[in-house]
Amino acid sequence: MIVTADLAISLDGYVAGPGVAPDNPGGDGAEPLFEWIHGLASWRERQGMTGGEENRDSELMREWFDATGAVVMGRTMYDLGEEFWGDNPPFRTPVLVLTHRPRPTLVKEGGTTFTFVTDGIHDALDRARDAAGTRNVDIAGGASTVRQYLREGLVDELQLHVVPALIGAGLRLFDDVGAGRRDLEPVRVVDTPLATHLKYRFTK
Amino acid sequence: MIVTADLAISLDGYVAGPGVAPDNPGGDGAEPLFEWIHGLASWRERQGMTGGEENRDSELMREWFDATGAVVMGRTMYDLGEEFWGDNPPFRTPVLVLTHRPRPTLVKEGGTTFTFVTDGIHDALDRARDAAGTRNVDIAGGASTVRQYLREGLVDELQLHVVPALIGAGLRLFDDVGAGRRDLEPVRVVDTPLATHLKYRFTK
Repeated sequence: MIVTADLAISLDGYVAGPGVAPDNPGGDGAEPLFEWIHGLASWRERQGMTGGEENRDSELMREWFDATGAVVMGRTMYDLGEEFWGDNPPFRTPVLVLTHRPRPTLVKEGGTTFTFVTDGIHDALDRARDAAGTRNVDIAGGASTVRQYLREGLVDELQLHVVPALIGAGLRLFDDVGAGRRDLEPVRVVDTPLATHLKYRFTK
Repeated sequence: MIVTADLAISLDGYVAGPGVAPDNPGGDGAEPLFEWIHGLASWRERQGMTGGEENRDSELMREWFDATGAVVMGRTMYDLGEEFWGDNPPFRTPVLVLTHRPRPTLVKEGGTTFTFVTDGIHDALDRARDAAGTRNVDIAGGASTVRQYLREGLVDELQLHVVPALIGAGLRLFDDVGAGRRDLEPVRVVDTPLATHLKYRFTK
């Protein structure tokens, strides 16, 4: 059981464009970050669709689905995704949502539950570990949530899907994440026409 | 003949740390950006030293040396490097230095000349093209100079040597470089324990 974070990122370091809102969840100009995902067979399968490409990128996404036993996300990400995910969200695992406002757990179809955690990032991670069993806990986002876990040294493996585009503005993943961290070790590089998938392990 | 830019960059996007000065040319905490280079046989050879590692990273650096027929750099980079480079600088090609203060051309040993250009980045690039012959022009740095050429769409190929470290502060390469650029195409990924070498082509 490890703690992972897995994000699409532009070559210039953005994980969302400016102007993120419920009707614009990726922010302005962020299409290159996410559109490559929409054609992948493994992603489509999780959304209840058929077809799509069975390529290396699709394998990596399936690998992530299979390895993940619980998910932690920030309240903003939840609010942005809630409607889109609908009654059968793609997680199919317990999801712990960081929030300041208590709310009853939501049980969705397909194995996804949303539990709202008001006691902070450590408590949410503890609960996610309990829920994940032998599988991994993934810190799904948004950027500020992943940054908090990175700052606290709570992420074991970071996978970045670097898309060949410059977004120019928006939310950077690495912003005040901590100077002088040399405890990163490259684990794997997978290079496809759609993205360069870089996986690092924190060795501390 | 193409225009290249070739930089070491931390995973969090920095090409120098904070506090860059003549006695601290990389800035604070920037050792991970550059120390992997110092052991490469091709780099040591260019500095007039023997030994070093003959590995894939060394081959990439030799490839860059061999392909480059002229170099453009900013005045700050020149000022920071002048003393370190000494009488036999590693470039061994014409170097065009962007500046506002005219100064006579300096002819060094080994084929390096420093010509000070006061008419802006386009003029410097034109002169570099003339000097490079069939070989490439490289925009060597610093960060603000490379950014200027990127903003103007004057760079054909960008190679980033991504080192597995977080610097946390300093000079970012991608800062106001332009939104919505989707004309990047991955050319090559070389993955070594020292760095992940990503090469992109601007296809416009």
